[in-house]
Amino acid sequence: MNKRVEPPRLGEPYLLTPGPLTTSFKVKQAMLRDWGSWDADFRQMTAELRARLVAMLGDGGEAYDCVPLQGSGTFIVEAMLGSLVPRNGKVLVLANGAYGKRAAHTLACLGRKYVLLDKGDYLPPRGVEVAEALAADDKITHVVAIHCETSSGILNPLAEISEATYAFGRKLLIDSMSAFGAIPVEPAKIRFEALVSSANKCIEGVPGFGFALVRRSELEEASGNSHSLSLDLHAQWRHMNETGQWRFTPPTHVVSAFLQALTEHREEGGVAARGARYARNRDLLVTGMRGLGFETLLNERWLSPIIVTFFSPADPAFSFDRFYDLMKARGFIIYPGKLTVVESFRIGCIGQMDEAVMHEVVRAARACLDEMGVGSAAPSDTALEERARLGAA
Amino acid sequence: MNKRVEPPRLGEPYLLTPGPLTTSFKVKQAMLRDWGSWDADFRQMTAELRARLVAMLGDGGEAYDCVPLQGSGTFIVEAMLGSLVPRNGKVLVLANGAYGKRAAHTLACLGRKYVLLDKGDYLPPRGVEVAEALAADDKITHVVAIHCETSSGILNPLAEISEATYAFGRKLLIDSMSAFGAIPVEPAKIRFEALVSSANKCIEGVPGFGFALVRRSELEEASGNSHSLSLDLHAQWRHMNETGQWRFTPPTHVVSAFLQALTEHREEGGVAARGARYARNRDLLVTGMRGLGFETLLNERWLSPIIVTFFSPADPAFSFDRFYDLMKARGFIIYPGKLTVVESFRIGCIGQMDEAVMHEVVRAARACLDEMGVGSAAPSDTALEERARLGAA
Repeated sequence: MNKRVEPPRLGEPYLLTPGPLTTSFKVKQAMLRDWGSWDADFRQMTAELRARLVAMLGDGGEAYDCVPLQGSGTFIVEAMLGSLVPRNGKVLVLANGAYGKRAAHTLACLGRKYVLLDKGDYLPPRGVEVAEALAADDKITHVVAIHCETSSGILNPLAEISEATYAFGRKLLIDSMSAFGAIPVEPAKIRFEALVSSANKCIEGVPGFGFALVRRSELEEASGNSHSLSLDLHAQWRHMNETGQWRFTPPTHVVSAFLQALTEHREEGGVAARGARYARNRDLLVTGMRGLGFETLLNERWLSPIIVTFFSPADPAFSFDRFYDLMKARGFIIYPGKLTVVESFRIGCIGQMDEAVMHEVVRAARACLDEMGVGSAAPSDTALEERARLGAA
Repeated sequence: MNKRVEPPRLGEPYLLTPGPLTTSFKVKQAMLRDWGSWDADFRQMTAELRARLVAMLGDGGEAYDCVPLQGSGTFIVEAMLGSLVPRNGKVLVLANGAYGKRAAHTLACLGRKYVLLDKGDYLPPRGVEVAEALAADDKITHVVAIHCETSSGILNPLAEISEATYAFGRKLLIDSMSAFGAIPVEPAKIRFEALVSSANKCIEGVPGFGFALVRRSELEEASGNSHSLSLDLHAQWRHMNETGQWRFTPPTHVVSAFLQALTEHREEGGVAARGARYARNRDLLVTGMRGLGFETLLNERWLSPIIVTFFSPADPAFSFDRFYDLMKARGFIIYPGKLTVVESFRIGCIGQMDEAVMHEVVRAARACLDEMGVGSAAPSDTALEERARLGAA
């Protein structure tokens, strides 16, 4: 089951980012031909893609259907919100980072009512808080949760959020962008109406479309909700079921790459094996970076196997821009931080990478610190105080 | 200048469709590596893409900026309408086929006022009709025109439409989806505020994003117009100018392929040479098919070099589905018709194809007719009467 990953064949840097990420060469080779989007061959590819994504839900997945949609992850989030929340609906948005806030911003654009439960940079929204918010406002029809908030790398507690949501008879919509395919979301265990993700995350395809896995009864009811022609999930779903085609021109090459990525996902052992590899990547990375003196924002309880936030060293010799360039020169593209209070950076654990690669990442980080003349990678006192707040949450 | 096209290397059929189309192998090979969308290398690619598309406008292009956007062509049309037409604006939509009607449908979704000048299946909207419609309604702020309406293959008379629009002090928005890159639209000759097209048309890239070329003053005024977070051209433009990045994850591989396609477009000799090759393709195709007894919907005056509509033969032995399968078996994917009154089919002239390929298309059509036992490719009397209506227009 434990397939070996392969290094980038054209010598490009590894992408230690939350996606676009490093994909296998075979995934990219699957883009070396052209398809007619109207043709039966491509319609078969679309059908296979949809069926395999539904199957990935595991137990309870038979009540769901898959609706792929052109564009980035944000497009499919907007499509989910605009299509599944009726115009007179009201949404409780659980935010602890950029993606939760973006969901709220999207609802504001669409003219949908919402209330925001904003936990700041990284504190997790807990079930009891969701229950309190729902008890206080019976106009709320939907709860939106971010599965892995990649701003900090936190894995939010979906199970307790779902329990609280349905205890109050409301509906849960999940942005599982950077988690789906590596972290199980089985409807038999966590109840929800819809989740969205995109091609270039844990399935390890290339960017160009997103997809929603939606309870069929919700899709049926969603007619006329959308504020947009292009982002109407109901219309896309109905058209696909009737014709086998995407409603508008699909990114054919990206779809072909995704099918190869799905095959490799299955060959690796599915969601469990993919998640296990990412967890090993994270463990080696965190242990190695801590060995250099770096500290993580999150403690073990909340650390996802997707991306890890490290505090920037307090040493004034450290500069993120220089660290970025030096790491890139060594073959690794890292990611800037998104915390508002303290300086930080992020390193992703997803994509065609294994522990051997992560070992090289840590070695490269060591070499970059030396080159910058950073004596200690320890963070500032402010950063450690920040983290202490999380412990108390 | 007259570069030779190359056959599909993996043996797939030629796509005689309005896009996705047959691209060069080098275009597809440009997708064989991964890019970080945040990284400076990719930002440079985005800057180059934008600059080269603006340059393609030719004389008068310096007042315009390029805003690429994830998704299919329909997404960028919706973004143009939703971002550039103010919420209290009103649009005159010129329709003679599916794409004009779709523009109207989009405006209805967005809640923008519009009037539809619907010429039916193929009759061209003329400047005098635009003038009449504008004279009759001073609430109209914008005119939307389809450059090449691929439903029929007609090339609409943009110059006279533009003259009428600006004579009445209104603004012209152009859907040049299947024409831009092969048919010149120089602002110095044809005045307009914005035009949109997509990666997988006459530039011969692969599908995954569209782009708008918009007068900068219009972009500046477009803040707050959009009904959508994802499809907001103003926000995408401002973010790109400020950061060099796409606002949300771009289809990095598709962008790379497009840059290669832009290089090949320039090497071939730019818009004029690209359009000339397509015109030669069309001429050989039309002459050859007429030689087999087929008739075109449009006469020479309106025939575009993009795609040609042929009437289906009246002979009952002809079936489009069988013709499609037989042509595909010979290596050519053709396209169904979209006329409502008579049976038709379409054959595209765009993509990596030249006269030698079109010669084979005609030979294949001959062989398919024989195999189906179609004695004459002549159309029905109804079809010929349809065409006579066009002559009188």
